[in-house]
Amino acid sequence: MNKKQLFDQIKKKRSFLCIGLDPVVENIPKHLLKYDNPVLEFNKQIIDATKDLCVAYKPNTAFYESMGLKGWETLIETWKYIPTNVFTIADAKRGDIGNTSAMYARAFFNEAQSGMGFDAITVAPYMGKDSVVPFLNHKDKWVILLALTSNEGHHDFQLSETKTGKLYENVIRVSSQWADSDQLMYVVGATIASEFQNIRKIAPYHFLLVPGVGAQGGSLADVCQSGLNKECGLLINSSRGIIYASKGEDFAERAREEALKLQQEMEQILKASQII
Amino acid sequence: MNKKQLFDQIKKKRSFLCIGLDPVVENIPKHLLKYDNPVLEFNKQIIDATKDLCVAYKPNTAFYESMGLKGWETLIETWKYIPTNVFTIADAKRGDIGNTSAMYARAFFNEAQSGMGFDAITVAPYMGKDSVVPFLNHKDKWVILLALTSNEGHHDFQLSETKTGKLYENVIRVSSQWADSDQLMYVVGATIASEFQNIRKIAPYHFLLVPGVGAQGGSLADVCQSGLNKECGLLINSSRGIIYASKGEDFAERAREEALKLQQEMEQILKASQII
Repeated sequence: MNKKQLFDQIKKKRSFLCIGLDPVVENIPKHLLKYDNPVLEFNKQIIDATKDLCVAYKPNTAFYESMGLKGWETLIETWKYIPTNVFTIADAKRGDIGNTSAMYARAFFNEAQSGMGFDAITVAPYMGKDSVVPFLNHKDKWVILLALTSNEGHHDFQLSETKTGKLYENVIRVSSQWADSDQLMYVVGATIASEFQNIRKIAPYHFLLVPGVGAQGGSLADVCQSGLNKECGLLINSSRGIIYASKGEDFAERAREEALKLQQEMEQILKASQII
Repeated sequence: MNKKQLFDQIKKKRSFLCIGLDPVVENIPKHLLKYDNPVLEFNKQIIDATKDLCVAYKPNTAFYESMGLKGWETLIETWKYIPTNVFTIADAKRGDIGNTSAMYARAFFNEAQSGMGFDAITVAPYMGKDSVVPFLNHKDKWVILLALTSNEGHHDFQLSETKTGKLYENVIRVSSQWADSDQLMYVVGATIASEFQNIRKIAPYHFLLVPGVGAQGGSLADVCQSGLNKECGLLINSSRGIIYASKGEDFAERAREEALKLQQEMEQILKASQII
């Protein structure tokens, strides 16, 4: 899915919500345990209940890998179940030397080889340009590079002052020479809303993938105030706040209710900003 | 495997060789294609031919993920096939917020949950302390943190000058407060041998996992000159130089020959340094 198509979906659905599909087997509602693959059934029901309210789904690969071979199968089947008009993000935080990143790109972008053809993958920037470019070599696919993450640990290195600015600012500035905003997004946590204004000076046109609204404490309104651009430019992720709204038989309905609240809030913001 | 056990293996085998198991299906010798799982058969024959010459095996997960579900199965079966007296490293370059890193730790350390119980995993430091600690919470398991990598891209961010030194130096200095050298190693590429002296000032006791000897151009002698410590402190990785020494029916024999050359060179170095 290219940038124009993504923006079209945002306008059509009046939403820039991304739902994180991060299932933990211990948290799956008990009545699903009768299924051959309870986690896949859980994901399918969440997708059915929310697919008209969000523009992206983001399975975090850690949650699938933790379940061994069955987990990897569930990741593949989950990707296959997501409708093609919804943007798909493999939240995989990968990145390695060139020939190895090429293999990761094959794993997540090349359906014929691996069974999965995500639109985008999250990538860690630490290893630099040649660890990122192999993903960008796949036309119409996206890299979502970690810039300023939502966790406490972003203080350890991302905010380090260098001669040319903070490390995360350098990551954005340097990497924006590797591809333009048609193939590159950045991860920026909602928990540091004060930095969005600064980030928009360096990257006015890029989409930002924003985790940390909800369970991690970030505010949607604060993020939007400085983060929106003319093409929306934001994908706001919520995982636990939606998928675990209830652990009972009503989990899918309650997930829809939580997604609907966010979509309605987003619709107001899009209108107020004259994006729709 | 703990640090003493690893050092015991090094002394016993007179080797500090790590073999990277990074199979690419296109490079597998043709006569193996008759097997149900040619890549697994390839790995098994490589392991059989080299297990007395190396102290560690390091499958890079990218190569398995690129083959889809069958690839993940091959990764699990490869781990299971490695003898228990050989140190196992999941070269996965993972790292995410705390609850997610805990899932990655489960994926690679907890055999009962995932089918794999590696001794160590490579982790990217960009997300800071809480992305690393969940791995360290597994007793007797190791984090091998990326410090200064062997690829060209290490110039982009790892060598950035901050107020307290280069970024990679900060990564070593800060992270060494999260665990001691019984659970923490660092990745330092052989292609930057000039930095080993500096690194040993900051981390005198840690093991360093050193890729980049062989196909990437690094020199074993140069690395050892400044990198060795009293407990050896080095795991030198070779992947392509060993596993693809031949693409014919003699691939396992030729892999053994290449591994033997390195083991013999290492034995001389260990003796000259009075480690054995």
